[in-house]
Formats: sequence, structure tokens, C-alpha cells
Amino acid sequence: MSHALRIGIAGLGTVGTGLIQIIQDHGALLKGRAGQSIEISAISARSKNKDRGIDLSSYHWVDDAIEMADNSDIDVVVELIGGSDGPALALTKRALQNKKHVVTANKAMMAHHGYELAQLAEENGVSLNYEASIAGGIPIVKAIREGFAANSIKGVYGILNGTCNYILTEMRETGRPFDDVLKEAQEKGYAEADPSFDVDGVDAAHKLCLLSALAFGRKPDFDTLEITGIRHINTTDIGFASEFGYKIKLLGIAKREENNMYSQRLEPCLVPENCVLGSVEGVFNAVDVEGDYVGSGHLIGRGAGAGPTASAVLSDIIDIARGYSCPTFGCPAGDLTDPSWIDAGELEKRFYIRCDVVDQPGVLADVSKILQNHDISIEAFLQRGRDPGQSVPLVMITHETRQKNITQALGDIEKLNSVLEKPCIIPIEDFQS
Amino acid sequence: MSHALRIGIAGLGTVGTGLIQIIQDHGALLKGRAGQSIEISAISARSKNKDRGIDLSSYHWVDDAIEMADNSDIDVVVELIGGSDGPALALTKRALQNKKHVVTANKAMMAHHGYELAQLAEENGVSLNYEASIAGGIPIVKAIREGFAANSIKGVYGILNGTCNYILTEMRETGRPFDDVLKEAQEKGYAEADPSFDVDGVDAAHKLCLLSALAFGRKPDFDTLEITGIRHINTTDIGFASEFGYKIKLLGIAKREENNMYSQRLEPCLVPENCVLGSVEGVFNAVDVEGDYVGSGHLIGRGAGAGPTASAVLSDIIDIARGYSCPTFGCPAGDLTDPSWIDAGELEKRFYIRCDVVDQPGVLADVSKILQNHDISIEAFLQRGRDPGQSVPLVMITHETRQKNITQALGDIEKLNSVLEKPCIIPIEDFQS
Repeated sequence: MSHALRIGIAGLGTVGTGLIQIIQDHGALLKGRAGQSIEISAISARSKNKDRGIDLSSYHWVDDAIEMADNSDIDVVVELIGGSDGPALALTKRALQNKKHVVTANKAMMAHHGYELAQLAEENGVSLNYEASIAGGIPIVKAIREGFAANSIKGVYGILNGTCNYILTEMRETGRPFDDVLKEAQEKGYAEADPSFDVDGVDAAHKLCLLSALAFGRKPDFDTLEITGIRHINTTDIGFASEFGYKIKLLGIAKREENNMYSQRLEPCLVPENCVLGSVEGVFNAVDVEGDYVGSGHLIGRGAGAGPTASAVLSDIIDIARGYSCPTFGCPAGDLTDPSWIDAGELEKRFYIRCDVVDQPGVLADVSKILQNHDISIEAFLQRGRDPGQSVPLVMITHETRQKNITQALGDIEKLNSVLEKPCIIPIEDFQS
Repeated sequence: MSHALRIGIAGLGTVGTGLIQIIQDHGALLKGRAGQSIEISAISARSKNKDRGIDLSSYHWVDDAIEMADNSDIDVVVELIGGSDGPALALTKRALQNKKHVVTANKAMMAHHGYELAQLAEENGVSLNYEASIAGGIPIVKAIREGFAANSIKGVYGILNGTCNYILTEMRETGRPFDDVLKEAQEKGYAEADPSFDVDGVDAAHKLCLLSALAFGRKPDFDTLEITGIRHINTTDIGFASEFGYKIKLLGIAKREENNMYSQRLEPCLVPENCVLGSVEGVFNAVDVEGDYVGSGHLIGRGAGAGPTASAVLSDIIDIARGYSCPTFGCPAGDLTDPSWIDAGELEKRFYIRCDVVDQPGVLADVSKILQNHDISIEAFLQRGRDPGQSVPLVMITHETRQKNITQALGDIEKLNSVLEKPCIIPIEDFQS
């Protein structure tokens, strides 16, 4: 290895330019911490002449990023192109094959191709680091893969998308509806013009899929992951949740269930407002890890933005400069097994249910009867206001019950004449701290 | 390196036996994660025959731990003896000199001798890891030294002693006095028979001293650290703090001040009850790190106990097994400089002040006049109850002011005939999140 670690940066968006900014700003600091200088040997992006607000004139420009994989002046390829396949994947594969380390912020690529890439990295004796791809400001890959490495992990719970958390926080604090807050988030730059990747949960699900693989030593499995976004969450439910002492958060949950089975799901949940995840507001991300010896650890930080993400990319580069190589998912790729997912219907949880019903005698009895038929008991119940003949919300919190029982019961409830709309149902996650 | 990493464990208290427990329990898991087996080559403690609730018969016993430093069957010496000097220091030095890695949970030794030991580790090309010595359940050394390595750190803020946090939490929640809660903590095993190490702040100060060295690349400097414990905190002040929206927490604070100066101090502070540190209760520890690019990161977890601490010791051992060596304080020992501490009197903060005064006309005018003379302005003021001629508390929150102004003003206030006791003064730390 030379006196400098030579990197090639493919992709010069917010993160790429943020990375160059830190390297220009903290040269001496980085050299001390990394044990050698970090030198930019080549840069590449779609458009060469775009003004990126930073001086790039001294760096060697390549038009086609794939060339970096063959460039003998590059030790580490930093992949910031994005997209699960296409040029990002081609570059990553070729770089690993050519025995170059790869650092990436690409959660989609890692979620879809992480196992194959982990094998490739291992075969070629190089690192594939992706700290920046999950909650940039939180060193969560390092925490699970190294800090909690002595533990059998029981569960990982995360607020993994800052856009969704910002929207849910604003809706609760201001009482404004989803569309309104989304529009504002777009204007402020917290949400993309096409927000579906965020608000439909895909982005958070990519991250959850990687956390789950890391925590349990399983192959990343994105395709079977059940994803529910936040478009259906309204201020009515946020308000009722609050009356019961809960907030609604979009949560990624990966858990070790019984009999060597696992579960992973991404969906809005009610969480106690005074637990750690309940106190995480706005664009912040948070991850709770539950280990068998360490107990529960909570990590909170910024999930996106140039600074936090570029900081995470550099931490991966510094590890490589220090000569540290850790298996991609914390154990040899050959040890990663196919996960056995528990049937979601078998999961036992408490649920929040809201039915909009006609305010008339007998409705409560009908609904209660159906729940009883499906072995569901009610822990708390709330009906606000009286408006005979009109629509009123009927809100219930159930005791622990199987998800399939709830699904069946709601099917029956929907058929009641007095029930006006499909009931809203949100699972409850109770944290001890 | 052989197929197994061979460790010697010196000290078989809670942490030592916890460590052996995990190794016995998670052999296969650890092998996968560490890349090789972790084997116990020798154990040592003061008493060989004590029942430790765990089978130790298969391990090689040595009477004098120092022998481990000379034993060619040992790659890593795990120092769990404790104490800043004596056998712990002798073993650590000799092990490093003999090119053995050392893993320690000994905050006192690291705080007092960390610089010398870091040099010794570097000269001999071995690791000196001490994750377990600061908030065992939180991978904070790893987070600062590696995760946030790309940042110039602006500040570190920590709840670093679970015993104190438990006592302060209980006092607030139950209204019971310090002595009473301390006694209960001792009965529950949360506090030692001699509690001074915890409640007078020494334990937390050792940890702060290490965090400060790590964050700023400075030599650990324990001797100049100003330490204030929690014995003087009473439920009156906890109650008033609460009325202003604050909780009282024993905080370790290390900050980069202006002109390349630094500050480090350990003292009870008022923190907003809804910020992250304000929400950390009971025996939990928490550390906030503020980096120039990453922004603020918060890590929360258990600070003590067999499981969390042994988990941290093992994470250090696994790093060594993976071949990872990071400089003790994050940069080469030769780069660590002597810190320049700012004069504490120059620090600008807001303060909580409580004076017990005789309820008589003119008292408020006298106190206000003195504050004005020292350039201190009042942001909020509270006087509860009226009891002419008797003692009543006068509570104030100041605007930002220099600590020396406050000290001088309080000196003058104490001299007033109407002021019955030395006023209570507690600094306020305002966190944005």
C-alpha cells in the first residue's frame, strides 16, 4: 500500500461533493486518524460541467465511472451513483473483481444484491463497506457488526426514513393533513418531487433488510419484505393515538421469533410517546438494538444530508486505510443462511382499531360480538361525541392477539351495515424504554 | 496467528465471569464473527476457591496474574483487576512490552496512565482496547474513534454514571431525599457500600477524561478536571427545575471552546426534560457527540452490569481477532498534545440559582441589585408562598453570563443579612434535541 489511500469517487451529487468537501477541509485530521493521507485519484459523474459549488479542477475526471474499476491508481472505489442495478452494480462488481475495496451509500443495491456482492468481496479479499446506506449519521453497521458482535441479536427496531418521520411529526404537532405537510416537505427539500420512494416505505425497507441481515447473519431478503407506507395515516388516528399515550411512527422491525424463525416488516406503528423511539422527532433517524447480553442500545442521529452521509462514507474509507476488513454482513458470506420467515398472520401483537360507524343503538354490541368470535379482547375503548344517525369513530386498543385473527375479524366488521368505511388498523409496539 | 485467539483473563468479578459465560454460551457465533475461535488460555483472581457460579475447572489457573504477560500461550491479556495502579498497571505494562494485546475495563488506569500506555502499545505494535471502561452497553469508543472519525468533534456530553442517574431519577419521581434513595440503591446493588466513587463523581470523571482525549486528540488529563458530585442536590431544587421544564442530571461535558482551547467538567446540570439526555432515566447511560459534519449523534444503553460490560470486552477482543488495530486515542500517540483548558470562570452559561431568604420587604431589590452590579440579567424568576419573617426560597434562571460573574455575585449575596444559607447554583445546558 502506498503512503496515501487513493480513492475514486463515482457520482457527484450531494454526498459526493460533501465527501470532497470534508477531504479538502480535514486533510491533516484525516491523515492522523487514518494513518495515511486520503487522496482523490479520479472523479466521475454524468455531467462534467455542472457547477457543484466546489473546486474540482485539480481532480482527474473520467467520463465513464466503470474505468475506475480498471485504474491501477485507485485502491478504493466510492460508489455514489445510486440505483439497485445498472452502472452502480456494474462498477461495484468489476471493482471487487479487480480487488479494489468498495465503499457505497447504495441501500437499494445492497438490499437486492448484497449477498452476491459480499461473496465477491470475500473471494477477492477486499472490503465492501456501506455504513452510509443506513441512517448516515448513526454508525449502526459498526455498532451491530462490531460493537454488539458478542451478542445474539433478538431484535432491531428503527425509524429509518427522515422524510416520513418529519411528516408524521408535523402532522401531530400542527394538525395539518398528510398532503399539506408533504407539499411543505418537498418545498423545504426534505422530500423528493416523486415522494413515493420515501412515503411508501421502500427506502426504509431497503435499510431494514440490511439491518436484518446484519443482525441475524442471514442473506438480505428484500423481495419477501412486507411494506406499508404512511399515505393512509391521518390526523384523526394521530390524535386518538395521543389520547392513549402513543405516537405513530413508521417503524422497521426485524425480530428473532420462536423456533429459529424470523420476522421483518416495515409499517406504521403506535409506540409509547415516552420511550426512546417515541421521542425521536423530525428528520432524525433512530435504531434500537436488543442483544442477549448487552440489553437494549439506542442510537439516534441524522439519517440524511450531505454532512452526515459523507461522514459515514469517510468512516468506511478510514477503516480501509487502517487496514481493517470486516465481513460484509459480520460473518463469512458462506455462513449466511436463507432466512425462515414466520407467517405474518401468526405474529402476536396489540392493535389500534378505528371504525367509522353510524351512531345508532347496537353498533358496539355487533362489533364486540365479532371481536369475541375471533378471540380478541379489548383493553381500552373510546367513543368521542354523540351524533345520532351520523358517522362517529369507534376506537379500540386490543390485548395481544394473532394478526390473522384481526384480519378475519375486520373482514366481518366491514360487512356490518353500520360500518361506513374499511376500519383503520395499526399495530402497537411496546418498548420498555 | 494461530487458529484460535488465546486470551488470559485477570480478575474474575462480575465482568470476568460474565465474559467467560458469553464465551461458553456463544462459541460458534463468536467464531463466525471473529474469524477464529476465542480460547481461554489462563485465568487468575485473588481467591481460587470462591464459588463464582460458573464452571472454571477446565481453565488453566495462575496464582499471580503478572505471569500472563510472560506466557507464550496468550495473545491477549484481559485486565479486569481494577485500580488505577498496582497489579493492574503492572500487568498491562508488562503485557504490552511483551507485545501482547491488552483489553481492559479499567477507566481509572486509563484516565491516569492512558497516554503512557498508548505510547507503549504503539511502540510494541499491539492494541490497547478499553470499550468496556466507558458506558459498557454503548459502543462509544468505537463511535468516536471510528464512526465519527471524519469529524472535528465540537463537544461530548454524557450521563456516565448509572448509580447517580438512578438516584436522581428516583428522587424526582418519588420526592424522597438523597440519603433515603442512596440506601435503597445500595440494597438493590446499584450502589457500592462506599458510594463516594459514584456519588462524588469520580467514576464519571474518569470516563469523561477518556472521552475528552478521544474526541479532541489530547492527552487524557484527569488531575485538572473539576468534579462536582450529587450529594448537595435536594428534592427542592429538583422540583423547581421541573417547574421550569428541566431535569437535573449529573453530566460530563467536554467542549471545544474558542482559540483552540478546551473545557471539561463533571457536574450536575439542568437539562431540558424533553431533550434526548433529559429522557434518559434510571441506570441507563447516554452520550451525545457533536461533530462538525455528522451533526449530533446520541447513544444510549446500559452503563454497567455483567452482560453489557462483558459484551464490550468481547467486542474489543473480536476486533483484535479480526486483525484490527486502531490507535488508542484515535490518532498516533505522538500526535496527542497537552490540552489547553479554558479558565472555568470564563465559561458562559445560564444558571439556576436558589436563595433561601427571609420573607421581608426589600430582599428581592437587594438581590437584584447585586446581580445587576455583576452584569447578570434574569430570564425567569419564581417565589413560591408567602411567610412574612420566615424563610422562603427565591429561585432565578439567569441569561447567559460568565461563571466568574456568578461566583462573585453569590459571594455578595451570601453576605446579605436576609440570606439564610449559601445559595444553591446549578448550571443549565440547553440542547437543541
